[in-house]
Amino acid sequence: MTSNPRTVLIVSDGTGITAETFSHSILAQFETSFKQIRMPFVNTLEKALKAKFDIDQIAQKTGTKPIVFSTLVNPEINQIIHASNALVMDMFNTFVAPLEIELNLKSTHAIGRFHQNIETEGYKNRIEAINFSLAHDDGQSHQNLDEAEVILVGVSRSGKTPTSLYLAMQYGIKSANYPLIPEDFERGTLPKELPQYHAKLFGLTINAKRLSEIRNERRPGSKYASQENCRYEVNEAEAMMQRENIPSISSTHKSIEEISTTILQVLKSDKTVY
Amino acid sequence: MTSNPRTVLIVSDGTGITAETFSHSILAQFETSFKQIRMPFVNTLEKALKAKFDIDQIAQKTGTKPIVFSTLVNPEINQIIHASNALVMDMFNTFVAPLEIELNLKSTHAIGRFHQNIETEGYKNRIEAINFSLAHDDGQSHQNLDEAEVILVGVSRSGKTPTSLYLAMQYGIKSANYPLIPEDFERGTLPKELPQYHAKLFGLTINAKRLSEIRNERRPGSKYASQENCRYEVNEAEAMMQRENIPSISSTHKSIEEISTTILQVLKSDKTVY
Repeated sequence: MTSNPRTVLIVSDGTGITAETFSHSILAQFETSFKQIRMPFVNTLEKALKAKFDIDQIAQKTGTKPIVFSTLVNPEINQIIHASNALVMDMFNTFVAPLEIELNLKSTHAIGRFHQNIETEGYKNRIEAINFSLAHDDGQSHQNLDEAEVILVGVSRSGKTPTSLYLAMQYGIKSANYPLIPEDFERGTLPKELPQYHAKLFGLTINAKRLSEIRNERRPGSKYASQENCRYEVNEAEAMMQRENIPSISSTHKSIEEISTTILQVLKSDKTVY
Repeated sequence: MTSNPRTVLIVSDGTGITAETFSHSILAQFETSFKQIRMPFVNTLEKALKAKFDIDQIAQKTGTKPIVFSTLVNPEINQIIHASNALVMDMFNTFVAPLEIELNLKSTHAIGRFHQNIETEGYKNRIEAINFSLAHDDGQSHQNLDEAEVILVGVSRSGKTPTSLYLAMQYGIKSANYPLIPEDFERGTLPKELPQYHAKLFGLTINAKRLSEIRNERRPGSKYASQENCRYEVNEAEAMMQRENIPSISSTHKSIEEISTTILQVLKSDKTVY
C-alpha cells in the first residue's frame, strides 16, 4: 500500500455522474484510498488536450499513474485521453465493440445520445414525478391520488419521504406517502383515502430502537421520540399492515436504492424489474 | 435490424441501479430497440442458477442471445451467469483485473463493499441533505442557512426544486432555494436573508417562452403564466443576478444532472469536480 491516495479521474463528454458512481463501486473493492476527481464536459479536442495535460501533470507530480475511467464517445477525443500517462479504463468502447459484433450494427458514436436529453418522455416524467411526490409528501394532499403508482405508508421517520423522492428522481414514478399516526391506531383503520388504492400501497417499517434514535435527533427527550412510544407505534403499524394485507419492508438496514428496488419488484409497477 | 427488441438483462448482487443507468447510456448508441430487465439481489448460488435458467429460457424463446450486463462480485455466482446462453458483459471483472495489476493489490471480492452501506458518513449525509433541502425549499425556512452549501435563486418554475433535491440525493449537498418574486424586483434587492451568503448563491434562469409554457401547465391563462409577465420576471431576475455578481446558468436545455455538475464546478463546493 502506498501512503498517498491514488488519483482517479472520471473523464466524460457529459456529466460523468454515472461513471463516477460506477467507478466508486469498483474502487470500493480495494482496501486502499483514492482521490476521485470528475472531469465533466470534455467534448472538444481543445478540452481533451487540456485534460490530457492535467492528467500528465498529476502523473508527474505524484510519481504514479493516475487511473482514468472514461466515457468518451468521440473517437478523436478518446484517442487524446488514451495517450495520457494513465491507466485508462474505457467504459464506453470496452462494451460497444462486442455489442457491435453481436448486434451486427454500427454504433452511432453520437455524443448527444449518451446524455440526458431533457426533451424525452422519460426526463419529463422524472420532473413531473418529483413535483407529484413533493405535493403528496406526508399525506399533504389527497388530490389526484389515482395518478400515484406507489403509495407508501409507515410511522413518522420510517424513510417514506427519501424513498418517494428517489422513486421519482430515478424512475419517474409518481409516489405519494402517508404517515400512520396514533389517531389511525386508535381508530384501527387506515386513513380513509387509502383502502380504494390497495394495490398501490406499500408499507415501510423500522426497528423501534433505531426509530427512537432518529426521532431523538429531531426532538430530543420528547414523548414522540421515546423508545416506549416508538415501540407502540411500530407494533401498531406492523399489525395494521398485516391485517390490511399490505406488503412491507424494514428500512432499518436498507438504503433508499434497496428499498425502491424491492418495492418495484413487489408492486411490479415498473415492469422492467425481474 | 431485427423486428423484436433484443432483451437486455442487468444481473447484480445488489440493486443493479448504477449498472442499469450505465447500460442504458451504452445501448443508446445503437439505433435499435431493447427490452431492459433488471435482475437485482442475485447474491446466492441458488438465485444465480434461477437467473441462468431464466436467461437461457429467453434465449430459446426469442431465438437470439440476450445481452447481460453483470456486476457480480462473487466468483462462483459470476461463473454461473457467464455459463448462460448470452453475451455477458462483465462490468466488474473487466475493470477489477487491470486495477489489481496497476495497484499491485488483490481486490477483496466483498459483496458488501460494492453496495450502498447505510452506516457510512456519505449515506447519512445524503439523507440529512434531502431533509435539509425539503425544509429549505422555496424560501420556506431561513433557519440554519449557514449550513447550506448551495443557495439557488431564480424565478418560480426555473428548476430550483428538482436541482436542489438532486444535489442532496446524489451528493449529500445541503441546498436551499429562494424564489425571486415581483416584490424583490420592485424593491430592486435580493431577499434580505441572502446577501450575507453571497459565496453560496447560484442563479437559475430560463428562456421566457419556455417558462410561460411550463407555468401554463400549472395555471393556464393566468397573468403569472403569460409570456409578457414571464419576460418581465426573467429580465429582472437576470439583471439582478448580474448586478449582484451571482453566477448563473440557464435551465432551458439542461438536465438536473448537467445543471448540478455546472454548479459544483463553479462553486467548487464539491472539491472533487475539476
